[in-house]
Amino acid sequence: MSFSDKLKLYVITDSRFGSEVDQVKQALEGGATSIQLRLKNVSTRYFLDTAKSLRKLTTDYDALFFVNDRLDIAIASNADGVHVGMDDMPVEHVKEIAPNLIVGSSAYNIAEANYGINAGADYLGVGAVYSTNTKLDARYLGVDGLRNISKSVNLPIVAIGGISHQNCEDVLNCDIQGLAVISAILNSEDIVNSSKEMRNIIDKYI
Amino acid sequence: MSFSDKLKLYVITDSRFGSEVDQVKQALEGGATSIQLRLKNVSTRYFLDTAKSLRKLTTDYDALFFVNDRLDIAIASNADGVHVGMDDMPVEHVKEIAPNLIVGSSAYNIAEANYGINAGADYLGVGAVYSTNTKLDARYLGVDGLRNISKSVNLPIVAIGGISHQNCEDVLNCDIQGLAVISAILNSEDIVNSSKEMRNIIDKYI
Ligand code: NI
Repeated sequence: MSFSDKLKLYVITDSRFGSEVDQVKQALEGGATSIQLRLKNVSTRYFLDTAKSLRKLTTDYDALFFVNDRLDIAIASNADGVHVGMDDMPVEHVKEIAPNLIVGSSAYNIAEANYGINAGADYLGVGAVYSTNTKLDARYLGVDGLRNISKSVNLPIVAIGGISHQNCEDVLNCDIQGLAVISAILNSEDIVNSSKEMRNIIDKYI
Repeated sequence: MSFSDKLKLYVITDSRFGSEVDQVKQALEGGATSIQLRLKNVSTRYFLDTAKSLRKLTTDYDALFFVNDRLDIAIASNADGVHVGMDDMPVEHVKEIAPNLIVGSSAYNIAEANYGINAGADYLGVGAVYSTNTKLDARYLGVDGLRNISKSVNLPIVAIGGISHQNCEDVLNCDIQGLAVISAILNSEDIVNSSKEMRNIIDKYI
């Protein structure tokens, strides 16, 4: 699988849904190709220990491992990359400090996408595509907004925000390289199976 | 001033006492020789922007600049060092990732001091010396506990925890290299003057 192929099913952890290790083990078993560890309000030591566990799991499954926001944790856990948003460390700094890390940059519009591209990002996290319960205040683009961005940029795009088994084919029709999901997979009775089902849909398109 | 001399008046920021930049400008004007930026529950972008401002100020005053906990912020702001506790990144990781940074390690007892020393720390933050209002749950050593540790280690020691103008001479008699203060300086009507007064006391001993 190429780098871009490994973005196809990108699962972001959420501590509301229990242990990160359990979440990730099941998501990988079901076919997740990338994992992003997102943790807030925990100690650096706990964050790092969790990251090291997920690094091991993702290596076993040949998946990519990203850390949200925290470059220090990404470096110390030997992650493949770090994902940063507009409130996080600027992409330029990340690239300067850790040139070998894959850097993902969040974008809501073409201006933010271009910022990421010019700063050296390796992929864009574009969204929210749909209104989402995960971040209640998130602005959303709709599939037309997503398609406008994917038309104008060449960098791999991972679509994010409110993506479910029901709506993901509309998203996959937007010429994007991956789907980032939280609730659709982690907030399900059977994480392995919900990952498998989404992966099967994705494999028809990407 | 040698490295160890620059630890003599070590001021740690506290957002309860207003803008970090204002706090630090006045503390430096009064004679602080080291500044540690400590921030919790803020975005990485805000943390980094604040760190860059303090880096400029500390350079102007020829003081050392440390970041609490966050190695990513320390590297990106070009800080002199990072200070880590037992809940933060292990000293070994910090030294491996950023061998040029000064690393301070917190120690409450001789076992923790030896951990820091063996892991490659450059100085120890030892305390709490006194019971403190800053961390209500902090254990405290007393001056006898502090003296026991300072006798048994050769690394520079910055004493921390409840140190005030009233009690600091007792601490300075413990064969330590610096005093770390928060409230005694930052929670005063005139930060410049309270720094000056403490610096004058310290200069009689160190
Ligand atoms: Ni495209």
